[in-house]
Amino acid sequence: MIVGLDVGGTNARGMLIDPDSLSIVGQERASSAGDGAVLVETLRGLVERLVGDEQPTAVGLGVAGLAQRSGTVRYSPNLPDLIEYPLGPALAEATGVPVATLNDASAVALAEARLGAGRGADDFVSITLGTGIGAGVVVDGSLAQGAFGFAGEVGHMVVEVEGPTHHTGQRGPWEYYASGSALGAQGRAAAAAGEFAAGVALAGSVDAITGFEVAEALRAGDDDAARIFDGFCRWVAVGCANLVMIMDPQRIVIGGGLSGIGQPLAGGVASWMPEVTLGSAHRPPVEIRMAELGDEAGALGAGLFALESLPAD
Amino acid sequence: MIVGLDVGGTNARGMLIDPDSLSIVGQERASSAGDGAVLVETLRGLVERLVGDEQPTAVGLGVAGLAQRSGTVRYSPNLPDLIEYPLGPALAEATGVPVATLNDASAVALAEARLGAGRGADDFVSITLGTGIGAGVVVDGSLAQGAFGFAGEVGHMVVEVEGPTHHTGQRGPWEYYASGSALGAQGRAAAAAGEFAAGVALAGSVDAITGFEVAEALRAGDDDAARIFDGFCRWVAVGCANLVMIMDPQRIVIGGGLSGIGQPLAGGVASWMPEVTLGSAHRPPVEIRMAELGDEAGALGAGLFALESLPAD
Repeated sequence: MIVGLDVGGTNARGMLIDPDSLSIVGQERASSAGDGAVLVETLRGLVERLVGDEQPTAVGLGVAGLAQRSGTVRYSPNLPDLIEYPLGPALAEATGVPVATLNDASAVALAEARLGAGRGADDFVSITLGTGIGAGVVVDGSLAQGAFGFAGEVGHMVVEVEGPTHHTGQRGPWEYYASGSALGAQGRAAAAAGEFAAGVALAGSVDAITGFEVAEALRAGDDDAARIFDGFCRWVAVGCANLVMIMDPQRIVIGGGLSGIGQPLAGGVASWMPEVTLGSAHRPPVEIRMAELGDEAGALGAGLFALESLPAD
Repeated sequence: MIVGLDVGGTNARGMLIDPDSLSIVGQERASSAGDGAVLVETLRGLVERLVGDEQPTAVGLGVAGLAQRSGTVRYSPNLPDLIEYPLGPALAEATGVPVATLNDASAVALAEARLGAGRGADDFVSITLGTGIGAGVVVDGSLAQGAFGFAGEVGHMVVEVEGPTHHTGQRGPWEYYASGSALGAQGRAAAAAGEFAAGVALAGSVDAITGFEVAEALRAGDDDAARIFDGFCRWVAVGCANLVMIMDPQRIVIGGGLSGIGQPLAGGVASWMPEVTLGSAHRPPVEIRMAELGDEAGALGAGLFALESLPAD
């Protein structure tokens, strides 16, 4: 049996996976609060609850942050107590089982590649639109982790060098414009200008509007929401076009917190792609698809990564 | 024997390569003018001059433009007569030898990977700074061509959405700021403002200044040129930082028309990288190196590509 772990800023999710059928045969959750030692104990407990007396073959560990291939978390805005902490090796030590570590958005990409919306595409990019933007890049059927394991930090790609300063300190990174948080900010800006009454009604006040209220008003057919959302989709497409220039994916898969919007999101981004993609008349259109695996993709992908990257015994 | 061909906007270069030693055993050149049929005949002639009565095992064909894996040139600003022309298949037909087609900047990357400045790095990006910016991306030791063969068009990555309109029609693409042409434009702008007298002296007039005069004044120790060049290096670094976010290369190799500047270019870009790379305190520094193979890299890389991608008989 394989265990996949997905460690986010609030929760850690564990999944028991049958290595032959790749089906999910157990799931557990725990809080991810605490420093490195506490988290290792939490994750060890999760593994134990999942496998009982059995020993898993391997553990895959997906972490929200810069997770080095070696298993050290170099930096994580969501897990500030983990900076420079060797989470993977410490968990291997605690469980006695090999641990393969990767970034959580890369884990999502691998799961979608093998079992979800990436199937049938050897070259694709999976992006997750939430608080920020994460991504996993699949090249010739394999996850591209990069030299150190940090590939896919596409939210920090600068698309407006002279743009506004993001909370990361960068000016004009893609996630300033195209994350789930950005959709909320664009809704608040419209509401503050008196152009999103439906959002104010749904959220209670201008300041309480998030991406979810924009999505809800969009679903309800509100024209203001449709306009806000169209502008947002253009920003998503602008960054996707950059990824297309650099990596030439056949497909881009959209997941994360905003994926509840569903097909209107994929359709909205797709509608902007020809306009923002240079030479679109001379290249096949890039498929824009919604992710298929939802919240389970991270832990599932971490497990698949362990299965694919650790030597079978 | 393997033949590598490098088809640019003005010239086609042919190279005969020993597949065992990978050494260059012959070179020929010809004009690349004319439509598809004329170019095929030119290239067939080049192959014949290189191999004599012998039959080469395979031909690698590097083309300046969007060259589809199948060998069709979808679009090439430098070879306008070749749009949608199946150059690879037509050459295979004319020579009776299998032809493997790729983009010229990808060919450069493969040559640098195997025999030049990319050696020892499994993940690196090679960029060529000339009229525009081309690139080749190497992932886990293999050339990443993308789904259709169009990967590496990094010059069209937008870094300033609201920026000036480039001749491609895009606003604010990287090559507007960081190509060899851009260095010339930055020199002319400084000269027009009365802040680059050395450039005017070298070129004869403000309008005649190109990147080469900036480079020459830089070499001569001119302070204005140093300031222009530093600003240019920042722009190169801005795009490199985006590539680092997306692909996490261990190294970036700089070649192309500006590579004559040499180490000051690599050093200038490297000096800006920590400032423009998010989280640079938590990630190993990316090595910035000058390309090693010069003008020969394109044809050499095309030959290597044929060797690596076509089945041995």
